[in-house]
Amino acid sequence: MHALETDLYQLTMAAGYFHRGLAHTQATCELSVRRLPHARRYLVACGIDQAIDYLMDLRFEESDIAFMREVPALAPAMTDAFVDYLREFRFRGDVWAVPEGTVVFASEPLVRVRAPIIEAQIIETHLLSLVNHATMVASKAARIVHAAGGRPVLEFGTRRTHPRAALSAARAAYLVGAAGTSNVEAGRRFGIPVVGTAAHMWTMTHDSEEEAFGNYLAVFPDATTLLIDTYDTLRGAERAARIAGDKLKGVRLDSGDLVALSREVRRILDEAGCTKAQIMASGDLDEYKIAELVAQRAPIDSFGVGTELVSPSDACSVGGVYKVVEFERDGRRVYVAKRSEGKVTYPGAHQVHRLMERGRMTRDTITLASEEMSETERSDLPLLEPHVASGRRVIAADLRRARDYTIEALKALPRELHALEPTDEPIYEVRISDALRALAERVWSAAD
Amino acid sequence: MHALETDLYQLTMAAGYFHRGLAHTQATCELSVRRLPHARRYLVACGIDQAIDYLMDLRFEESDIAFMREVPALAPAMTDAFVDYLREFRFRGDVWAVPEGTVVFASEPLVRVRAPIIEAQIIETHLLSLVNHATMVASKAARIVHAAGGRPVLEFGTRRTHPRAALSAARAAYLVGAAGTSNVEAGRRFGIPVVGTAAHMWTMTHDSEEEAFGNYLAVFPDATTLLIDTYDTLRGAERAARIAGDKLKGVRLDSGDLVALSREVRRILDEAGCTKAQIMASGDLDEYKIAELVAQRAPIDSFGVGTELVSPSDACSVGGVYKVVEFERDGRRVYVAKRSEGKVTYPGAHQVHRLMERGRMTRDTITLASEEMSETERSDLPLLEPHVASGRRVIAADLRRARDYTIEALKALPRELHALEPTDEPIYEVRISDALRALAERVWSAAD
Repeated sequence: MHALETDLYQLTMAAGYFHRGLAHTQATCELSVRRLPHARRYLVACGIDQAIDYLMDLRFEESDIAFMREVPALAPAMTDAFVDYLREFRFRGDVWAVPEGTVVFASEPLVRVRAPIIEAQIIETHLLSLVNHATMVASKAARIVHAAGGRPVLEFGTRRTHPRAALSAARAAYLVGAAGTSNVEAGRRFGIPVVGTAAHMWTMTHDSEEEAFGNYLAVFPDATTLLIDTYDTLRGAERAARIAGDKLKGVRLDSGDLVALSREVRRILDEAGCTKAQIMASGDLDEYKIAELVAQRAPIDSFGVGTELVSPSDACSVGGVYKVVEFERDGRRVYVAKRSEGKVTYPGAHQVHRLMERGRMTRDTITLASEEMSETERSDLPLLEPHVASGRRVIAADLRRARDYTIEALKALPRELHALEPTDEPIYEVRISDALRALAERVWSAAD
Repeated sequence: MHALETDLYQLTMAAGYFHRGLAHTQATCELSVRRLPHARRYLVACGIDQAIDYLMDLRFEESDIAFMREVPALAPAMTDAFVDYLREFRFRGDVWAVPEGTVVFASEPLVRVRAPIIEAQIIETHLLSLVNHATMVASKAARIVHAAGGRPVLEFGTRRTHPRAALSAARAAYLVGAAGTSNVEAGRRFGIPVVGTAAHMWTMTHDSEEEAFGNYLAVFPDATTLLIDTYDTLRGAERAARIAGDKLKGVRLDSGDLVALSREVRRILDEAGCTKAQIMASGDLDEYKIAELVAQRAPIDSFGVGTELVSPSDACSVGGVYKVVEFERDGRRVYVAKRSEGKVTYPGAHQVHRLMERGRMTRDTITLASEEMSETERSDLPLLEPHVASGRRVIAADLRRARDYTIEALKALPRELHALEPTDEPIYEVRISDALRALAERVWSAAD
């Protein structure tokens, strides 16, 4: 179903390995981010579970093979033997990965794949797409949720990104603590609470705001959040209070000076006896604006965030890469690494150990996966765990549990990582273990 | 299939219109962009044909209806009568739109929908998602293609966006003149030429670069573009020339000083007799870097562009909105418009007339759709044309034809619009017709 949603070169290289007798070479590849985006102090790994779903489902259907024969660059390699290989193709490798929602930093592997080289190669593009996109959204959403300081954040961004990307974005936002989404399909697919109010169009296609509010209440008597800024927000608040009375669940402000308006609206609602009615704010919000509203003590109970959550203008992509770190052929193990400007990779299969002190993340150490930790480091938390063994999933995906884990993990962030301003200062210490550094120096020198 | 890929409030409002006897209200809504992104001088409308596909396919399946009953906010409205309405739901309205690939500016309608209000309302979110995303990519890709000055641009961005968004991005890039994509599924689905070279992993999992090149050539003797920057680019070029000889189709540079390297590599290839071998450049390219390479006369034959094409950091979203402009109820026509800070809308159904002089776009005029053009303006090109009439598609989508149209349209851009630098100066004149302005003044005053 997704086999052709990849770069052509993955398929030509697969054919190349096959025809040159390299199909049984075992390769280990890792997905990591070389540099954090300038405007991010940490990333939240996301999309891992969806990537595993993809690996479990990956098949070449007859229609896929038929199209591959038609691609001029591939056609010469589509022999009967290779076609038979594709028909039998399954991902049969091992995958270690950090749990969905883990806080990660530059150079730390999010996913480690060990598989016959064709399998390890073919999956690269789709794996990167899923993880890069979801990690990009989760990392922004975590900042927004934190800025809201416990007030619910609702994901409203569907219209500002591709419809399918929107589903993944709603999931990523929920993972890091958003309370709900406006996207109904995301609710169905992922079990996320689905929320919404009304649009200006509802009000504008009635003869008056009173009539619009009355009609909405008549249909949804128990769950009405009224949008009150279509004409005059304060008059809208008065009308909402008058018409809904104590049934008024809430009002939404979508424009204007949200500090001043929320205070005035709160006063109007309270004086009318609608003390339980909540105020939701929306309209081009991001973590900076939300932090300011919270700092100003604006009486806003929840935030609806769209554009900036799903397409963050300060970091709209995450540059995760997928690099081979070692391979085995004819019984030999070969370590692979590169050191060029801005493109350092470390050889070998890795683990990340996280030191926790008094409930706070304190320091990470990237080690060789095979490395024995010293006595003092043994208490550090190893981040990568087995997800797939010989092509079989060994951890069931569970979004609710992943969300609980993520929210706890974000509570353990050092305070400096929660600061919103971009910085180029190293804030969080990520060490390279002595054994890994020694191996890297050896491999780098040999490659130079 | 896509019915629930929308915001919840579209469905609650639909239920509201239904239960309050407004189902037969006819509404006209328009999709337009209020302000261009700061870094864009024009937009290329894209995603229109996919949006029409969505309208033609839109159905509420039983499984959709079953889930809608489970959403607490919707449940009270899911009466038998409304469920029957949903089962019979089809989009039966009219759609006018600019052709796929049309250059558009702020306030100009890209799509105009006239339909019973429930239909006009329900489609809002998905329509915006498709058009906003594709227009975002097409508008960036047009700049990149123009900067390349006739050299082929290849879309390589799949790994930097969601897998499904990547398909739409490949299509948008092709529409504006990209020569191909690395995404195989995009090739199958849209008939785009599929292209690719090899990755560093291919080279790094061989014992030597020579062996890697030799193995690739053995499998793909006639179509080999070799990636030569894995170790030392110039030695890579020498090896490629030596091993492939005059069969060498091309080489790819993915890092380093592309001006200096491309000159050296060209010299090495020419001296080795590989005069027909082409040089492809990739690696974090965008229109600025490409323009600089072209200005420096770097001997690069084609450009592979990824991240910045699919997730442009200078404008990663387009803020298209969908607003009701008029509705008819009980035989009355009501014009709708708003004038608040930064949020001006014009009442009534609109047309855009484009004045062409000596093959160049010269000025646009936004008019009422019903307006008679004066003698002097009659030669202006009306941009919106009927796409759907009473729920039936009246223009078949044809990506090749749309691409030809788009490439021609981009040639007609005034030179100032091709400049890459952001500007807040108004560069291209978009007039409001006298009749429209008079109507707008009347409606704005009444709303104040």
